[in-house]
Amino acid sequence: MKAIEWIDGRVVLIDQTRLPGETVMLALDDYLEVVQAIKEMRIRGAPALGIAGAYAMALAARQIEAPDMGTFLARLQEAAQQIAGARPTAVNLSWAVQRTLRVAKAASSVQDVAKTLLAEAVRIHREDEEANRRMGQLGAELVPSGSALLTHCNTGALATGGYGTALGVIMAAWEQGKVTKVFATETRPFLQGSRLTAWELAQEGIAVTVIVDAAAGYLMSKGEVSCIFVGADRIAGNGDVANKIGTYTLAVLAKVHGIPFYVAAPTSTIDLSLSGGQAILVEERPAREVTHVGGTLLTPEGIEVRNPAFDITPCNFVTAIITEKGVVREPYNQELRRTVGHGNG
Amino acid sequence: MKAIEWIDGRVVLIDQTRLPGETVMLALDDYLEVVQAIKEMRIRGAPALGIAGAYAMALAARQIEAPDMGTFLARLQEAAQQIAGARPTAVNLSWAVQRTLRVAKAASSVQDVAKTLLAEAVRIHREDEEANRRMGQLGAELVPSGSALLTHCNTGALATGGYGTALGVIMAAWEQGKVTKVFATETRPFLQGSRLTAWELAQEGIAVTVIVDAAAGYLMSKGEVSCIFVGADRIAGNGDVANKIGTYTLAVLAKVHGIPFYVAAPTSTIDLSLSGGQAILVEERPAREVTHVGGTLLTPEGIEVRNPAFDITPCNFVTAIITEKGVVREPYNQELRRTVGHGNG
Repeated sequence: MKAIEWIDGRVVLIDQTRLPGETVMLALDDYLEVVQAIKEMRIRGAPALGIAGAYAMALAARQIEAPDMGTFLARLQEAAQQIAGARPTAVNLSWAVQRTLRVAKAASSVQDVAKTLLAEAVRIHREDEEANRRMGQLGAELVPSGSALLTHCNTGALATGGYGTALGVIMAAWEQGKVTKVFATETRPFLQGSRLTAWELAQEGIAVTVIVDAAAGYLMSKGEVSCIFVGADRIAGNGDVANKIGTYTLAVLAKVHGIPFYVAAPTSTIDLSLSGGQAILVEERPAREVTHVGGTLLTPEGIEVRNPAFDITPCNFVTAIITEKGVVREPYNQELRRTVGHGNG
Repeated sequence: MKAIEWIDGRVVLIDQTRLPGETVMLALDDYLEVVQAIKEMRIRGAPALGIAGAYAMALAARQIEAPDMGTFLARLQEAAQQIAGARPTAVNLSWAVQRTLRVAKAASSVQDVAKTLLAEAVRIHREDEEANRRMGQLGAELVPSGSALLTHCNTGALATGGYGTALGVIMAAWEQGKVTKVFATETRPFLQGSRLTAWELAQEGIAVTVIVDAAAGYLMSKGEVSCIFVGADRIAGNGDVANKIGTYTLAVLAKVHGIPFYVAAPTSTIDLSLSGGQAILVEERPAREVTHVGGTLLTPEGIEVRNPAFDITPCNFVTAIITEKGVVREPYNQELRRTVGHGNG
C-alpha cells in the first residue's frame, strides 16, 4: 500500500479522507489538483507531503509552456510558491520543492528540465522509503522486549514514501517480537489514528488498540505504556518538535511518568535555520474539522472553534530523535547539526 | 432548562444523547426505564445521576406491590441495587439511593413509604440546586478579573439538579464580569463538551470556544488559559478525584504550566470511606462510543478499543476543591473530613 506513486505521467494518491471506509484512488495530472489535495488533506504526513510536492513540481514543469529558460523558471517559481504554501507547518514540503527547484535551475534547456525534475522527484521518493527502513532498524533497538507502545496520529506508509517513520519503528520492533501491543490515539480532529494507523497496523496483523486522545494519561498512570513513538512535521535546530496537536501533551505525560518519548523523522524534517520551536508557524485549520464528523454536527450551529493542527514539544521532553543517519540525543543543538551534516558534505 | 424533573408522577428527562441537534423529552414511569436511560447516558453528570437515582427509587416504591413492610423493603432493596449499579463510578448515584432507602426503612407503613420517598427525592433535587448556587458564589471568588477559563466535560444544569458545579462557578464568575472567554474541551468520546457545555454556555450568551481535548496543552503553553474548573464523579477522603477521562491529563498540564486547577463538587460527591483514588472503580464503556460518531464508523471494522470513562487525578494536582460548605485545600485528608462534617452533625 503506497500513499503516493507516479504512474504513467500522473500522480496517483489514495484519498485518505475516505479511509478506512473506502479505498478511492485519485489520478492527478495538474499540479493545482495536487495543491488542492494537500490542502484538503487527501494526502498528509510530513514526508508524504514532501514527495507530493516534488511530484507536483514535476507536473508543473510539464504544464508550463515557455519560450526560454528565464520565463520557464519564473513560472516554475510561481508554481513552487503555490505548492509550498499548501500546508505551512511541515518543512518537508518546502524542502522538496526547493530541492527540485535547484535541479530545474541547473538544467540545460526547457526540453531537458521536465525529465530532470521528475527524476529528482522519484529520487526523493526512493530516498524517503530507504530512510524509513533505516529509522525502523535504528529505532527498534531502543524498544525493550515485552513493550506496549503508544503512538499518535499516523506516521505509517500512508504518511511517507513507504514503511513509515514512527510507525516504521513500531513495525520493525513488532517484527523482532519485542512488542506486546500498540495503543493508537484516535487523534482528533482528523482521526488519523483511528482511521489510518489502526487500519495500517491491523493490515499488518499487529495487535492495535484504539483509545481517545484523553485516555493516554490514564493508561500511563496505570503502567500500561512502555514507550511512546511519534513523528514530526518540523524539528528546530535545538530539537524542539512541531507535530500533530496533542503530541506536546503526550510528551509532558511521558516525562511525569518516566516513560521514554521518542521522535522518528528523516533529516529532511530538521530545519537548522530555526533556533527554536517558537519560530515555527502553527497552522490553524477550518472549524468544520472540529464541529463535524462525517455529516454529523457535533456542536451548536455557529459555535466559535480553535483548531490548531500542531503543537510544539520543547526539546527537553524528547528522549531521543531517530533519524536515518542515527539516533540523536541531547545536546540537540550540537548533535542535530552533526547528524544532518554527516554524509552530506 | 432542567436535566430532570418530577412531573405528574413521572420522571421527565431531556435525552442528552440527542442534544444539541434535537430536544427530545422522555417521560418515564418505570424505574427500570430510568436505569436504562442512565446506562445509555440519556442522563449523565454525577449530581444529576443522584437525582435520577432518587426519583427512580420513588418510582420503584410506587411499582412494588407487597403485603407487608418486610417484603416491600426486600423488593426495594433489589431495585436499589439495580439503580445504583447502572453507572459504577459516580458516587452520587449510590449516595442518593442509600439516602432514600434509609428514609423508606424509617417509614411507618407500605401506604406511607411511596409518599415519603418521593418527598426525599424532591429534597435531594432541591438541595443539589442550592448547593450549586452556593458553589458558584464561592468558586467565583477564586477567579481573577480578565480570566480565560477552561472546562472539561459538562457540569452545567444538564449534569446537575440545576445551575451546575464547575459550570455554575464559571457562570457566576461570568456574571461578575471577570471572564473574557471559556474554552470547552469537546470531551471524547461522548462529546459532552462540544454538544452540551457549548450549548449551555451559548444559551447564556457566554463567549465559548470549543477545542479538541488534545489542544488544551497547546493553549496552556501559549499562556491562553488562566484557570481550569472541572467537576467530579467521586472524591476520595484524601482528595483524589475521579472525573471524566482526560481530567488527569489537564491537571498534569496545569501543574506544569503553573495554572490553578479547581474541582467543584457538592459534598455528596465526597466518599470518605475511600482512603485514596486507587480504590475507585473506573467504568469501561462500550467500544462503539469510540468507533462511531452518529452513524459514521471511524475505525476499521472490529478493531480493539479501550474506553475508560474516567480517570483519577491525585490530590497533589488539585489546587482546591469547591463544595457548597466551603473551599477545601490541602491537607485534604483532614480538611475534607472537617468540611463534610460541618453543618451535618
